[in-house]
Amino acid sequence: MVKTSYIEFDTRGTDHIVDITDRIREIVKNSGINSGIVTVFVPGSTGGITTTEYEPGLLKDLPKAFERLAPEKEYYHHNETWHDGNGFSHVRASLIGPSITIPFVNGELILGTWQQVIFCEFDIRPRRRRLVVQLVGD
Amino acid sequence: MVKTSYIEFDTRGTDHIVDITDRIREIVKNSGINSGIVTVFVPGSTGGITTTEYEPGLLKDLPKAFERLAPEKEYYHHNETWHDGNGFSHVRASLIGPSITIPFVNGELILGTWQQVIFCEFDIRPRRRRLVVQLVGD
Amino acid sequence: MVKTSYIEFDTRGTDHIVDITDRIREIVKNSGINSGIVTVFVPGSTGGITTTEYEPGLLKDLPKAFERLAPEKEYYHHNETWHDGNGFSHVRASLIGPSITIPFVNGELILGTWQQVIFCEFDIRPRRRRLVVQLVGD
Repeated sequence: MVKTSYIEFDTRGTDHIVDITDRIREIVKNSGINSGIVTVFVPGSTGGITTTEYEPGLLKDLPKAFERLAPEKEYYHHNETWHDGNGFSHVRASLIGPSITIPFVNGELILGTWQQVIFCEFDIRPRRRRLVVQLVGD
Repeated sequence: MVKTSYIEFDTRGTDHIVDITDRIREIVKNSGINSGIVTVFVPGSTGGITTTEYEPGLLKDLPKAFERLAPEKEYYHHNETWHDGNGFSHVRASLIGPSITIPFVNGELILGTWQQVIFCEFDIRPRRRRLVVQLVGD
Repeated sequence: MVKTSYIEFDTRGTDHIVDITDRIREIVKNSGINSGIVTVFVPGSTGGITTTEYEPGLLKDLPKAFERLAPEKEYYHHNETWHDGNGFSHVRASLIGPSITIPFVNGELILGTWQQVIFCEFDIRPRRRRLVVQLVGD
């Protein structure tokens, strides 16, 4: 049994980290699928998905780590192609990855108590994002 | 067809890397599911899952790379929230990611000969860990 | 419903990035499975899979980021075990991860317009690669 849903939201650009846990939890709960896995996927090459404890400190610490992976002020050849200044956004997105797959059991996402699912906006401008939430189970 | 299992083990804290391949292989073999995918997930925000060749050299090389991603001695704002000194653990966990999804065919995990599934403990103290192993297939 | 396929190709060694999108798209389209998820997995510990905009600039920018994650000229203890000089290949592969899971709907992969699925060869010599493409859906 497969069920496709989408979640949409606006971001503020570079390193805006959005907590999408409740949206996914709600989709799982209302799906009519008891147990299985949910894949959350960003169609696009400047966003990433992972998990973290969503608290104000880590929301400052994570961008510092992203900067270490792909510094904003480095030279990026990507800019020769599009001149849009978001080479570091693309590199960060490739390193974090565009998706996550999470188990659910009896309609409940299996997450840690202090663990949230986050979308990381790496693009340099505000974006409207639409993620795919694909459930497979029985 | 969906089957939920769990594996439990103890870790020694920071950068303890645990080979969980045989535990997953056994669950797949005894599941009664012939082919599909298995998602291994850590409910918690200070552990990561990936694969490597599990040999003594890489068990020293990987922690050096984790240190490069999120140095232990940096300042972490996370500490202002909890004062527990594990900001770098959280950041490393978000970058490595909390899960992996692996195909299996005829009851056998599809892995390379020199490829093992590893749990990376990033928290600073020994932990009892319980991972979810979710099989979906037919 | 589960369907197992494989894709094979040759790589040129260190940081050769191969666009495998069309191969996966074709497998999904011809599978007879309408909707679900596809897991692409590299059985081996010196290759990685992620997505990017596959254009000449980023094909130069990504290897620079890989070098930042695990510099080629660092000392790797892995070399004490095998003397094969590919310690950095292994570390890069563990950090990028060996798999990706992507939703598909009505026989179409859900990807962004400028988003391609890439295999990253981290090993230091040309390799013949064979990836598993596992579809689960209905």
